[in-house]
Amino acid sequence: MNKVTCDMAMSIDGFTAGPGQSLENPFGEGDVDRLTQWMIDEAELHKAEIADITAAGAYIMGRNMFGPGRGAWDLDWEGWWGDEPPYHAPVFVLTHHEREPVVKQGGTTFHFVTGGPEEAMRLAREAAGEREVAVAGGASTVNQFLAAGLIDELRLHVAPVVLGRGERLFEDTGAFTLEPVREPTGSAMVTHLVYRVVR
Amino acid sequence: MNKVTCDMAMSIDGFTAGPGQSLENPFGEGDVDRLTQWMIDEAELHKAEIADITAAGAYIMGRNMFGPGRGAWDLDWEGWWGDEPPYHAPVFVLTHHEREPVVKQGGTTFHFVTGGPEEAMRLAREAAGEREVAVAGGASTVNQFLAAGLIDELRLHVAPVVLGRGERLFEDTGAFTLEPVREPTGSAMVTHLVYRVVR
Repeated sequence: MNKVTCDMAMSIDGFTAGPGQSLENPFGEGDVDRLTQWMIDEAELHKAEIADITAAGAYIMGRNMFGPGRGAWDLDWEGWWGDEPPYHAPVFVLTHHEREPVVKQGGTTFHFVTGGPEEAMRLAREAAGEREVAVAGGASTVNQFLAAGLIDELRLHVAPVVLGRGERLFEDTGAFTLEPVREPTGSAMVTHLVYRVVR
Repeated sequence: MNKVTCDMAMSIDGFTAGPGQSLENPFGEGDVDRLTQWMIDEAELHKAEIADITAAGAYIMGRNMFGPGRGAWDLDWEGWWGDEPPYHAPVFVLTHHEREPVVKQGGTTFHFVTGGPEEAMRLAREAAGEREVAVAGGASTVNQFLAAGLIDELRLHVAPVVLGRGERLFEDTGAFTLEPVREPTGSAMVTHLVYRVVR
């Protein structure tokens, strides 16, 4: 079985995005740039972690991570990932509304899955071959997969900021134990914590 | 001015104790032993961090951290810290109910402060001389002091466990920024993160 990974950029108080996510503010309101600024300002320093984030053979994401729309699809809107998304692999987007796949440059194709998390996982495993499957986010999607015991390795990238509100990781996941896979590393902008999920 | 420190043992999802704290379960229900087990099983490995926790010249704590009682004092109950508490310094306990100081062995005296956080801080600074003042907990007390901008250095001892419920750090503290003071360190049982609070 494929290893299932999940990388999440999180504030020290557990938020992965602010409230009020929108087309203009994909990460919501508040000091949310701090969650991912290390990927830009310190790309060289964290290149191993960044490479891991985009190493999977298939991805699963919630609809909110594809775009800000809700309800029926606006087919002119093809997600906020641009012409060449960083995935270079099939991406399975959870949604209640059917849609034909959206093919992008560089090997990324967004497939729209209406059968729920288990169906998305089945399709992603199939597409990934022997490579990893990554649950890409956002928080509510990751929380569903954590609650279902479907994530093997959780890689938290913890930014030194208290956001105080927003989308919270570990909400309604139930209690469980983690096992550090390696020593924590990081910089003044982020701490990388890699855990195996024990259920 | 004295440096004000705060050491908190926290789960990765932000809890410092479970729900239902009582005489029998000072840390509440759930897998809460994991929060502090490193202090026992790996005392030698983490001796520097443990020494820091008990290095202050005066301490402030919420009433719940002194004992499980609420309302008027039961004077026969002298707290759950035993005959020789680990503080070896004056401890100022926040309460709405006046009480004479409780003197313990080894230099620890519990003083009961009814004037609120600012009054406790004034008394603790006075008692600490030039040494640090430490806000010892629990979460709701620490959150009050964080919200009031009264903590300079936050030392989080993060255990690899998701508790899912309980007393949450950073609840109602508002948003603020942290600045790592040193590299993260730790073991399979705990990650130590030391931050300067920037407001």
